[in-house]
Amino acid sequence: MNAEIPDIVIGRLPIYLRELNQMAQSDGDVTTSSQELGRRLGISSAQIRKDLSHFGEFGKQGTGYHITYLIDQLQKILHLTKIWNVAVIGAGYLGHALVNYHGFQSRGFNVVAVFDVDEDKIGEEMGHLTVRPLYELEKSISENDVQIAILSLPPEVAQDVTDRLVSAGVKSLLSYAPGHLTVPDGIQVSYSDPVIQMQRMTYYLTP
Amino acid sequence: MNAEIPDIVIGRLPIYLRELNQMAQSDGDVTTSSQELGRRLGISSAQIRKDLSHFGEFGKQGTGYHITYLIDQLQKILHLTKIWNVAVIGAGYLGHALVNYHGFQSRGFNVVAVFDVDEDKIGEEMGHLTVRPLYELEKSISENDVQIAILSLPPEVAQDVTDRLVSAGVKSLLSYAPGHLTVPDGIQVSYSDPVIQMQRMTYYLTP
Repeated sequence: MNAEIPDIVIGRLPIYLRELNQMAQSDGDVTTSSQELGRRLGISSAQIRKDLSHFGEFGKQGTGYHITYLIDQLQKILHLTKIWNVAVIGAGYLGHALVNYHGFQSRGFNVVAVFDVDEDKIGEEMGHLTVRPLYELEKSISENDVQIAILSLPPEVAQDVTDRLVSAGVKSLLSYAPGHLTVPDGIQVSYSDPVIQMQRMTYYLTP
Repeated sequence: MNAEIPDIVIGRLPIYLRELNQMAQSDGDVTTSSQELGRRLGISSAQIRKDLSHFGEFGKQGTGYHITYLIDQLQKILHLTKIWNVAVIGAGYLGHALVNYHGFQSRGFNVVAVFDVDEDKIGEEMGHLTVRPLYELEKSISENDVQIAILSLPPEVAQDVTDRLVSAGVKSLLSYAPGHLTVPDGIQVSYSDPVIQMQRMTYYLTP
């Protein structure tokens, strides 16, 4: 049944989850409604109800959603009831930012290793980690049960590293390297390229 | 007419543009086809033809697309015939990565200023820029005709800075701060949050 749920719906669930956590933790709210959640996120309440209805009945007409219950359910749906080990490949400024980012652990992820090929960077202390040489990639992925990798490396080497990661058992990649990556069926790639995002916006601007 | 073109179509044009540039510059290709472009990007050729047909007739049956011509047309459509000045707010590791990123200028963007509130960072040389105090934000945006800003700052201050940027004339924001930002109609916000992207992928993984 889940296979029929559109990926675009799946993509909105983490946004709901983030906002619900914000409401519970910072604002101390106990219950909410699709109207309030929608207003906070700029999404229609009908869209939110429809998205959630794919997975069951989470709220009651009139009383709305119990926030911690809905958070719990979304975490189960998104497989966030465990902490996922993540490897970061590339120890430049972006790699630094990722390893030192404090928002991973509380949201389901733990950066367990960071790699580089640069002799000057290998051995460097970075947050709670030490930068490791790229030739240890396969060994580390296997030992740490890493299924997710983040690429913060130059585009010229992104495909080669991707091939190695996939061979070593990585199932999901988040790439900050500009350019499309080719992966086998069943492997997921998500991209983050600031230029792609800004070029989409300049379409709407007056030069 | 252009107002009717779905934003999701606009969002794919920069991806076509990036791949076409790759084909022209690195691979030295002169012509291509929707089939080849689609194969390289994992998008159907029919989708590419349909997307481009919103804007005119760019290829010929049998001979395909002349790459530099199509690049030129896409740059015009996306308003990339000028270089857009960009401000970066937040001079941490991510701000460093953005200011030192060499992929902006050739793709239509120029980081002209970087700001922080931290006295230790203000005055620091960062790439070709010097970190400026946040109180100079409005003055700098006005002087440099900045319409696009990138937020690489803590989420607690993201909304306040957004409000100031919008008041100062910024029209498009790319935010790396986790959390939804509220902006007036006509202002665009694009988000980049690695956790949101990874949580979308863990849905498909086996815990």
